[in-house]
Amino acid sequence: MLIVQKFGGTSVGDLDRIQNVAKRVSAVKKAGNDVIVVVSAMSGETNKLLSYAEHFSKAPVKAEMDMLLSSGERVTASLLAIALSELGHNAVSMTGRKAGIVTNNIHTKARIEEINPLIMQEAIKEGKIIVVAGFQGVSQDGNVTTLGRGGSDLSAVAIAGALKADLCEIYTDVSGIFTTDPRIEPKAKKLDMISYDEMLELASLGAKVLQNRSVELAKKLNVNLVTRTSFSDEEGTLITKEENIMEKPLVSGIALDKNQARISLVGVKDRPGIASDIFTKLSNNNVNVDMIIQNVGHDGRANIDFTVPVNDIDDAKEVVETFVKESEIDKVSYDENICKVSIVGVGMKSHTGVAAKAFSMMAKENININMISTSEIKVSMVIDEKYAELAVRSLHAAYELDK
Amino acid sequence: MLIVQKFGGTSVGDLDRIQNVAKRVSAVKKAGNDVIVVVSAMSGETNKLLSYAEHFSKAPVKAEMDMLLSSGERVTASLLAIALSELGHNAVSMTGRKAGIVTNNIHTKARIEEINPLIMQEAIKEGKIIVVAGFQGVSQDGNVTTLGRGGSDLSAVAIAGALKADLCEIYTDVSGIFTTDPRIEPKAKKLDMISYDEMLELASLGAKVLQNRSVELAKKLNVNLVTRTSFSDEEGTLITKEENIMEKPLVSGIALDKNQARISLVGVKDRPGIASDIFTKLSNNNVNVDMIIQNVGHDGRANIDFTVPVNDIDDAKEVVETFVKESEIDKVSYDENICKVSIVGVGMKSHTGVAAKAFSMMAKENININMISTSEIKVSMVIDEKYAELAVRSLHAAYELDK
Repeated sequence: MLIVQKFGGTSVGDLDRIQNVAKRVSAVKKAGNDVIVVVSAMSGETNKLLSYAEHFSKAPVKAEMDMLLSSGERVTASLLAIALSELGHNAVSMTGRKAGIVTNNIHTKARIEEINPLIMQEAIKEGKIIVVAGFQGVSQDGNVTTLGRGGSDLSAVAIAGALKADLCEIYTDVSGIFTTDPRIEPKAKKLDMISYDEMLELASLGAKVLQNRSVELAKKLNVNLVTRTSFSDEEGTLITKEENIMEKPLVSGIALDKNQARISLVGVKDRPGIASDIFTKLSNNNVNVDMIIQNVGHDGRANIDFTVPVNDIDDAKEVVETFVKESEIDKVSYDENICKVSIVGVGMKSHTGVAAKAFSMMAKENININMISTSEIKVSMVIDEKYAELAVRSLHAAYELDK
Repeated sequence: MLIVQKFGGTSVGDLDRIQNVAKRVSAVKKAGNDVIVVVSAMSGETNKLLSYAEHFSKAPVKAEMDMLLSSGERVTASLLAIALSELGHNAVSMTGRKAGIVTNNIHTKARIEEINPLIMQEAIKEGKIIVVAGFQGVSQDGNVTTLGRGGSDLSAVAIAGALKADLCEIYTDVSGIFTTDPRIEPKAKKLDMISYDEMLELASLGAKVLQNRSVELAKKLNVNLVTRTSFSDEEGTLITKEENIMEKPLVSGIALDKNQARISLVGVKDRPGIASDIFTKLSNNNVNVDMIIQNVGHDGRANIDFTVPVNDIDDAKEVVETFVKESEIDKVSYDENICKVSIVGVGMKSHTGVAAKAFSMMAKENININMISTSEIKVSMVIDEKYAELAVRSLHAAYELDK
């Protein structure tokens, strides 16, 4: 098998942990596999370098930030290669450039455009373990770039895709994907498998193990992704295409997102295109609108409720207040004490009654549902934040996720 | 003018010092000059990375050491470019690769083979300040290499040569080249100018401001080298070709090297080629022999005395003991309590009596001279180490270097 293993900052957080990673990689290689390792900077290093840059400038030149920040991964990569050599392997570190990771030239958040896998393929043929500095690539004009948050995961997935690896293992400090947050429901179970689409829904709903960019890329390149912990030998969770999952559970998990706020527009003027105006301007102001409900109120004016991430509230206020000034909206209210509870599962596609069961559970617990949205594999409900944990535990039990 | 400025580890030792360097570079640029800056890693960084590598291996793979160690200079280069941008300049950092510094592939002590100055020339034309990560290059096969001790100085000199810079300033924590070590003779004076050859003699004799590799390269490429301090505006010392020095002093400086040992071979067998055998084997064993004296002793056997650096004594012992075993040498003795005092000056070429004055000074102070060697611009004497400082001060006064 060809296995790509990615180790994040906490997994390579100090020299002893790097030594542990070396032992783990060594065992996989000795079992007869080919291995490509992708590493992040030692935890704390990137923040240290960021603080250095901020000492000189509030808005440092982005190309220089890439030059600066890409050094952290180089250090980890060479140290791990040295540790692997000491264990008797033929190991070689590679920068993003050497590994053939070509990006566009949007510094600090570049997108991978292609992988030229020749040098890596040659090294694999020679029996070498490759250690790639994650998070970085090289632009067409030859400058080092970085891939933004979660960039090392992206490096790993892209390499696994380009080299048609059998597996891409993402090592973090979490042992896998759970049916819900174990801090809320201790009976939460680790999932053995989950589909890309379910993972995408869970990630966007607040389960922070993997970023959506990485899962999307894995789906596009058909990469079998495993998320597991580097601190034990526990098996992780396989994220793969739906067809590979034999027994499709009705519901895979319950996600909770407390990071939402509701904006209520009361008395919206009845003129054609006004809703479009409002939401276009919100979008242009970088506000991520999630759910929207519109009710026709009295005297012909409508009420529109919508949710946004809490961080976007100020940007949203800026937009809607202009409509209030122009008397196109009577009144605006904001509510940060809400949350979004979601039920995710590919099984919903072929089974009815999943949403109905959720609504009746909420009724049984006397929890009022403010807003609802559904997709093929998801039911989301906005409720009062104080009921968040209660709702999660009730739903987790209702769909028998603890069994 | 095109000026190359190189700042060593202590000059960029912390963020405030980097800010000071930025101000200094900015002033030179604003005065109408083009500037290329070469930087070392922040002091302590390289040693930290070395200790990391040693945690994993006593003899880490050298190519990985280059990957590891080259990151320190990248960090300084990008930080300085950010600081210069903040001061309103168009500044860009470059790795050794980007700056076109091509080396052979002897990792950890690569030699510069050529500089492809096109990218730097283009940037200079565009009015940019270039900040080059020193100490590093790229091998013909595309791997990062480092240049060994004093490597950043070499980067600076090579760049100055390739771009025909008017000046190459090497900033350290020392303000220039002195007539002798001011810790021994407080009346020592800073020299305004000195020739390459004199500098080479002084450096090899223990004045540690610049390494000989850099001075040799400056001589070869005809680079006007200035060594000065980054901690004040004091003028430094210009190292240039002899023809540029109008008033050639008889003696430029007195150097002291305590790091020498004498090996005495007593009763060397009288057979043709034996001296050649001994010194060839010493050379093959990496022993740097400096001075040699041979006396014919009684019964046809000779005595040979020679000096080596203290660090080479064990390697030297290994060689000479084999001759003792084979009865080609009767006895060997070692003396580490010696030192070498040298008088250096281009003026000696055209003036006689310099050596005679030195010998008579030694006689006056009752200092016994064990060995003597001379070159066109140097007189060296081996004396008992306990007279080292006395000899330096006497000679400094005798040649009126304090005037």
